[in-house]
Parts: sequence; structure tokens; C-alpha cells
Amino acid sequence: MKPIYVGLCGVGTVGGGTATVLKRNAEEIARRAGRPITVKMAASRDLARAREVCGSDVEIIDDALAIARHPDIDIVVELIGGTTVAKDLVLTAIEHGKHVVTANKKLIAEYGNEIFARAQEKGVIVAFEAAVAGGIPVIKALREGLTANRIEWVAGIINGTSNFILTEMRDKGAAFADVLAEAQRLGYAEADPTFDIEGHDAAHKLTIMSAIAFGIPVQFDKAYLEGISKLQAADIKYAQELGYRIKLLGVTRRRDTGIELRVAPTLIPAKRLIANVDGVMNAVLVKGDAVGATMYYGPGAGAEPTASSVIADLVDITRLHTADPEHRVPHLAFQPSQLADLPILPIGEVESCYYLRLNARDQTGVLADVTRILADQQISVDAMLQRPNDATSDDGHDDVVIITHLAIEKNVDAALAKIEALDTINGKIVKLRLEHLNG
Amino acid sequence: MKPIYVGLCGVGTVGGGTATVLKRNAEEIARRAGRPITVKMAASRDLARAREVCGSDVEIIDDALAIARHPDIDIVVELIGGTTVAKDLVLTAIEHGKHVVTANKKLIAEYGNEIFARAQEKGVIVAFEAAVAGGIPVIKALREGLTANRIEWVAGIINGTSNFILTEMRDKGAAFADVLAEAQRLGYAEADPTFDIEGHDAAHKLTIMSAIAFGIPVQFDKAYLEGISKLQAADIKYAQELGYRIKLLGVTRRRDTGIELRVAPTLIPAKRLIANVDGVMNAVLVKGDAVGATMYYGPGAGAEPTASSVIADLVDITRLHTADPEHRVPHLAFQPSQLADLPILPIGEVESCYYLRLNARDQTGVLADVTRILADQQISVDAMLQRPNDATSDDGHDDVVIITHLAIEKNVDAALAKIEALDTINGKIVKLRLEHLNG
Repeated sequence: MKPIYVGLCGVGTVGGGTATVLKRNAEEIARRAGRPITVKMAASRDLARAREVCGSDVEIIDDALAIARHPDIDIVVELIGGTTVAKDLVLTAIEHGKHVVTANKKLIAEYGNEIFARAQEKGVIVAFEAAVAGGIPVIKALREGLTANRIEWVAGIINGTSNFILTEMRDKGAAFADVLAEAQRLGYAEADPTFDIEGHDAAHKLTIMSAIAFGIPVQFDKAYLEGISKLQAADIKYAQELGYRIKLLGVTRRRDTGIELRVAPTLIPAKRLIANVDGVMNAVLVKGDAVGATMYYGPGAGAEPTASSVIADLVDITRLHTADPEHRVPHLAFQPSQLADLPILPIGEVESCYYLRLNARDQTGVLADVTRILADQQISVDAMLQRPNDATSDDGHDDVVIITHLAIEKNVDAALAKIEALDTINGKIVKLRLEHLNG
Repeated sequence: MKPIYVGLCGVGTVGGGTATVLKRNAEEIARRAGRPITVKMAASRDLARAREVCGSDVEIIDDALAIARHPDIDIVVELIGGTTVAKDLVLTAIEHGKHVVTANKKLIAEYGNEIFARAQEKGVIVAFEAAVAGGIPVIKALREGLTANRIEWVAGIINGTSNFILTEMRDKGAAFADVLAEAQRLGYAEADPTFDIEGHDAAHKLTIMSAIAFGIPVQFDKAYLEGISKLQAADIKYAQELGYRIKLLGVTRRRDTGIELRVAPTLIPAKRLIANVDGVMNAVLVKGDAVGATMYYGPGAGAEPTASSVIADLVDITRLHTADPEHRVPHLAFQPSQLADLPILPIGEVESCYYLRLNARDQTGVLADVTRILADQQISVDAMLQRPNDATSDDGHDDVVIITHLAIEKNVDAALAKIEALDTINGKIVKLRLEHLNG
């Protein structure tokens, strides 16, 4: 049978991995797909490297758009990244009736609605398994494996760099800056790590999962982001003492009033399986009303893990290549005409449990004041811990750690403002969210 | 759009769950599938219960075969179980050009080749996500999510009853018989638990995953089964002391000479995520050459978790209902003409690490004899532990626990026969397999 011809746009880490795996496993892949999947053209700024990676059978050019327009190409693989050239490329490919596979989370999270609408009109598929959680087929699980369910929430450790840093901070009791430097030395963090450690990358992925889980458009601009750079070793230690671990967790949850969509350092009970996902590994926990909790675990980045997802999309498209557009799985799991207009809730409306750390004068009545203020805002206390703080205990102040039951964030913020105004309380209160993630 | 009409054959636990979830989430499911999925007929021996579960819109009959022949039915859901009526039903449905969804692991593991061949001829789909690991979409992951990979091995905790028993034995230091009685009281084990605790159920599921992972026919008759009923509390304790946990593990691995296919109580390093899958939960760990290790975790049984998989299959079929047969995902992931004839290896050819427990006279030279016999069979020792045995230590015998490096099982058996023949060794040696499950 005639091969499916792929145009590979971008021959960097993932592009190289894709070319390598397509070649190495060509026979195995063809046995599954029913026909060979062959890279026919590749576009790269580094022609020599592309030549070396792709081999001499592949036509190497420097203009990705020429691939998007080329009549011999069936599927365009976009691995350029960013949202300028990549967006042009994807839209051009769609205009020319080509299916697209992309690993570009930023592009899908920010421009997915526009891209999917054009793809729908032109009857082509835009597949993006590789955009979320690297090699873990979690888009497929959400979009096809759990279609029976009303999804209640999705929670994910979906940034390997942050998870590596948090794991090291916990294991070694080290400070954020020291571990970041180590991660950069090991190649687990970029020279400019902002995108990973401040939650942008995780929020892109979470935005995509949220849309697929709940049948809503992608709305990255409404996502709440909080990174790990301000996280202190003391809080990791107190969390552990109370039976929790801190992870950079993306949480998207359906509430009656809308959808929560937030990435932040979050306490999770240490006994949960997902709390034990360490180092650069990723995991996504999904709660459905019928199935309960299922979890998907694996490498969230890297050349060949990401290539694994790119190629899975190529095989899916190959299997459906000549089928009518109506037989395809909708891009966002729900039929395009059936997306809901549930709003993304502002962070003040989020419901969560909370971890609070106060530096309080060691004096009768202080805790009574604090708990009264919390109670006035309908916040009840689940656990409390009082410990001398290394830095301040000699001046008569202790760390007080409070774990709350479920509360609305704006109520918590209102209470914290009042507590911080007490003259028995020193400085700012540390506030972290806490999720029990009950199956 | 015209609904897809489902005929539900069997309205027991899973059938009831399927009817319930299809009704409760009808709107959500239709938004995903593009059209309603409606139970139009149901067959049950208990008409009153079926009526109660399915509601008055559904035609209830007692003859499942009449559903398989009925012109109004698009998809037949087989939830009867066993391989007599169920097999007739599935083949009859196929003959009448109907798609089939089944949760019947025994039927697929034992008669899958025949069933898929008929389905292929008639251009219909036989879907069976619910047959393996309940609500976890692991068939989809293996068949579609990991298609880029040459799969190296699959290892699964795929029987909830056994996992519950092993978890309780470990947590409470209790004996197998006591925990089994408790599991029966809690409804986690059947009155006759043989099928679960002796590995049949797990071997059915593993056989199916093995076929999909490696592109071979299902060959349940070649699977090796060893249950947990003879497992002793002492071995769970020693394993823990050495940093391992014992799980009823299904392992299928590709070797140059063939495929390993075996279910047995197996030691796993306690630090592996899968070693921490406890109670009735299931998990499947898959090693692919490109992606590395990915894991799929969730409830392996129960009415609604299993219904979740049944309905996911219904949605998949609905999306492809009117597409040409050539656009479908092959039943066993690989194209039917492309299945390999790699043999299933006999247990003697299996390669594993081993846990051995000997009861040895506490006397100079005994361990030298033992390790020499092992070395003669190319078996090297990774760790050793010597402990007084409560039952026999007063007569001058100790427990000796040996962990080996990789060895071929027939060599281990030959060595054990020689060691047991030593007059310094008491009784039979306990032999368990040990898998490192390196990612």
C-alpha cells in the first residue's frame, strides 16, 4: 500500500526523535498502521543536522511553509514551537487540506479554538497528544477512554523540571535556588527556567486537558498560575510532618458555577500514589463519575517519549486518512457544536483546602484570635502545628501551621488580611492549596 | 441524528452499571459521540430486575440470541460471561453484521482468534476494553497510544481480589486463609475464589495484552499460572526486609526466542510506583523502546468502572459506525495479516531474577555448597539473608533467603533439585520470581 508521506517541520530534539523512531520501528509501525509512514520532506534551519538525522532519502529544505503546501505531503508534523511560524505553518497546512500533528502546547492552548475551527471546515485532523505530558497517552485517555464519564476533575504533575526540583528540595532539605542550579547543570532546567518553574508550561497543558475533559473551548488566558520559585524549604518540611507532599499541581475541576483552572504548588496526602511521582516523571489523575479515579504515569518530556506521542497521532491519522470527516474523534472530545459555555472561575471563587503558615507571638490568646477570624469567614481547621522557627523563635515567635477544611479562596484571603493585621502576627502568611484527591 | 441502538445481553453487575451510566450521562455521552447511544433491548434471565434497571423504554426479553438477530440493533453488548452462550451470542451477532462490545476476558483470551477472524470477514468491530483491568483504558493505550513503540514488556497487577489479599497479608502479617475469609466477608472475593487467587483471571487479561503488545494471536493455553494460595507470611516479611513487595504480577516479555507469558506472585522493588498499588486497585506498567515506562492505574472491577470501559467502546464504535472496515483499528492492534508467529516460551525458558528460601542446617560449609551449586548453573547471587526460623530454629536450622541475578528458570530448577538433595537442607525450597521493572 502507498506510504503515508510525512513532512517534518523542525528537526530539533523532538523532530530528531521522531525521525529516528519512525526509521527504527518502521516495520512494527507499518504492521500496526496498515501502511508505511515515511518522512518524505523535512524543514530545518540547520540543513546539515537535518540531513544527518533524516538520512539521504528525505528532501531537506529550510522553508517549512513549502512543506505545508507540497502536494506529496499527507501529514504535516509541526515541531518548531512558539506561536508565530508554527501558527502560520499549521493554518497553511490546514488550508491545503493536510492533517497536522503538533507537540506545541502553547499553540494549542492559546490558538486551539481558531485552529480547530479551520480544521473542522477543511475536514482535516489536528492531533496533539505530544503537547500534554510527553509520552503518556493521556489526551487519548481523556478523549476516548473515559467518554462514558462526567469528568469531575483532572489533577496533574505535568512539568518535569518543577517536579525534579521539588523532589530534590524534599529529599535534601535544600533551598530552591540551589536545586535549580543543580537542575540546570543536569540539563533538567533551561538557562531561563521561567516557563517551567512559574507554571506557564503546566498551565498550557492543563488548559488543553480542561477543554477535553469538560467540553469547553481552550481558555489559557483565564488560567491561574503560581510557580514554585518562592516555595520555602520550611513548608516542604512542615507538609511532610503533617503527612503531605508538595507538588506543582495543575487542577481543573467542574463546579456548578464554572470550571476551576489553576496551577500552583499544592499539598497532596503522601499516601496517594500521585504524591509518589518523583523526579522528572509526570502523572495525571482523572476523576470520572463512573470509573472513579484513574491515573496515567510516564515520562513527560524527552526526544523519544515525545516522539512516541507524535507517532501515535500519525498512526491514528493513517488509520482514518481516507475516512469521511464525520468519522473522526472531535478535536476537543466533544462535537464542535456541543461545546459548553461554562465560565472559568476566577481564583477567588476556587474551592480548596489550604495550608497556612503564620509567624505568631508565643502568647496566650493568639491562636484563639486566629481561629475566630477563620471561623468568621466559614473556614474550619482540620489540623494545627506549632513549632519554633529557626529564624525568629528567639524573639518569642513560633511558626503556626494550619490545615483548613474546604473553603472558598476569597474568604481565605479576607481572613488572612485580618490575621496579618494582628500585632501578634509577624509578616506575611504563607498560603498554599491542599488537595485530598479522593478517588 | 438517529441514535445508535444497543442490545444489552446480561443485566447483572456490569450490565446494570452500563444501563445506569448510559442513562445518567446520556447527554454528556451524546455530546461526545455525535448521536445518542440508547439501550433498545435487553436480555436477562431475571426479567423483573432487567425491567427495573433498564426502565420502561427498553424491550426486555429472555433470549439474548434474538437480540443478536434483531434488525433494529446496531451494537450487541455481551455481558453474560462464560464461553458457551456468550460465544454463540457473539458469533451470531457478527454473522448478522452487528458490532459487539464485550467485557468477557475468558471468551477473548480463549476464542479471540476465531472471533476476530469472523468479525474481520464481516467487517464489524469486536471491542473489549472492559475485559482487561476494568475501568482503566489500557487496551486503548496499548493498541493506539503506544503504536510508535516496539513494546519490550508489560507487567500488571490485574486481579483486585488477589491484590487486596496480598495487601492485607503484608499490612497485618496475617496468613492467607485468614485474609481470604475476610475478603469473602467484604465481598472482595467470591465464595469459590479459585479463578481469582490461582491466577486464571489475571492470565486471561495478560494473554489479551500480550497479543496486542507483540502482535501475536491470543494463546491462553500457553500461559503459565501460579496463584497466591500457597504464599506464606514469612516470605512477605523477608521480601519487605530486603526492600521488595510481593504482588500477583502478570508479566509478558518479548525475548529473541519468543514471548514470556506468566502470572505468579512476584517480588517488585518497594520503591517502584507499581509496588505501591494496594487493595483492590489495578495497574499496568508498559515498557516501550521509545517512550520508556508508562503506567495505567485505576479500579480493575466493579459495576460502573467496568461500564465506563463498555461505554467507551460504544462511543468508539459509534464514531466509526458508518466508516469502511478498513478505517478501523485492528482488533489486536496489528493488521490481521501482520500477526507474528513468535512462540510463547515454556516456563523453563523464562528469564527472571529469583527469591529462594531454604531451611538450612546452621553449620559451616552449607552456604558454600549452595552457592557452588547455583554457580554451576550460571546463577549468581545478588543478596543473601540468614534468619532463625520460628518453627525450626530450635533444631539448629535457619532460614536462608537468596536473591539471584537474572537466570533461566530451568537452570534454577536444576540447581534447586540438587540443593534439596543436600542432607543439610530441610524440605522444599520456596521459589518466587523477582522483577526489577526498570523503566
